[in-house]
Amino acid sequence: MKLELLSNPLCPYVHRTAILLHEKGLPFERRQVDLKNKPDWFLALAPRSKVPVLLVDGRALFESAAINEFLDEVQGPRLQAEDPLERALQRGWNEIANDLFSAQYKLFVAPSPEEIEAARKGLEPVLARFEEGLASGFIDEGGFGLLHAAAAPALFRFVLFEQHRGARFLAGVPRVESWARRIAVRPSVPGTVPPDFAEKWLQTMAERGGQLARG
Amino acid sequence: MKLELLSNPLCPYVHRTAILLHEKGLPFERRQVDLKNKPDWFLALAPRSKVPVLLVDGRALFESAAINEFLDEVQGPRLQAEDPLERALQRGWNEIANDLFSAQYKLFVAPSPEEIEAARKGLEPVLARFEEGLASGFIDEGGFGLLHAAAAPALFRFVLFEQHRGARFLAGVPRVESWARRIAVRPSVPGTVPPDFAEKWLQTMAERGGQLARG
Repeated sequence: MKLELLSNPLCPYVHRTAILLHEKGLPFERRQVDLKNKPDWFLALAPRSKVPVLLVDGRALFESAAINEFLDEVQGPRLQAEDPLERALQRGWNEIANDLFSAQYKLFVAPSPEEIEAARKGLEPVLARFEEGLASGFIDEGGFGLLHAAAAPALFRFVLFEQHRGARFLAGVPRVESWARRIAVRPSVPGTVPPDFAEKWLQTMAERGGQLARG
Repeated sequence: MKLELLSNPLCPYVHRTAILLHEKGLPFERRQVDLKNKPDWFLALAPRSKVPVLLVDGRALFESAAINEFLDEVQGPRLQAEDPLERALQRGWNEIANDLFSAQYKLFVAPSPEEIEAARKGLEPVLARFEEGLASGFIDEGGFGLLHAAAAPALFRFVLFEQHRGARFLAGVPRVESWARRIAVRPSVPGTVPPDFAEKWLQTMAERGGQLARG
């Protein structure tokens, strides 16, 4: 199975799939896509004009959740629940992880104190869901499943933001904070972004107007 | 398996799940949710505060794609591809069906000729994808799978709109138009909305500003 990931170094959705490929021990190549100026070869391959796309022996899979579930189905270790009802819950939770990506992005590019405050308010209920998920045991903090891969890019970015800018967004959700610190050092997570990721990413958030991202 | 669908008569995402329950021959009850004034019991059950939620013996599944895949896994006939790669493509296409819902909704609530034109332009590439999917045989016009259920509420609404308001949006995509006419008379599709659906739905689109929806 020849795998090529159509990729962008900053995209958290690409990061999800790279994490899963790493967890599965599957070798893959990357082809970078300039998202500001999407080339024709990419638009011809990507049905929604978005990364990630994973070329599997030349066939283009798209949508990180669909790609990751495919990888889990064809390559062990199994990261999904065996029970269909649990699996359906995990698939639903993938959308809550998407909500986390959106809410986090709004916060990191918010250009004014008012917009930062509004973004924090928008993030709160999403973090509360994860806190509940960890408290109930639905999410196993020490384990690793498809939902962990789905949330990992956002958790990692929160930890990086605190380390580089001192802003601690997870103080009110201690279970999420502990989970984020654990995920942020799992080899597949920092191991699938470039060495200069934190600087490049913070610089990009600042260029998009993010006040908190400025050094 | 006791099934209760937390529901709203106009929501196309609820319609998706109702269609699948009908196709599977699974009896279910509905509990209506006032989406303008969401009750506390609903917010306690719905992790993303959205319909549909399907209560399965009291456990709340959410997200139409996750619910429908669950139903397909526990009750025949099997509507997904057996091949993992084909199944992953179908899961990715579910997002293209979501794009169709969004683009269609923008068109139906567009308040001015300029916004109608912009919405038409936004719809075009999504319809073109489906036209290609039908032309290539990836979508089997005469068959019925999870992707058919995912797209059906939008296809049905296009057909109703033409019948009631004379606006023919699918003229440029003849394969999609033929598919829509077929889907619109499949028993599970009109059979899972109330008898006065077309009037109520057009009235609601008009109330939301939709110029084309006015009688």
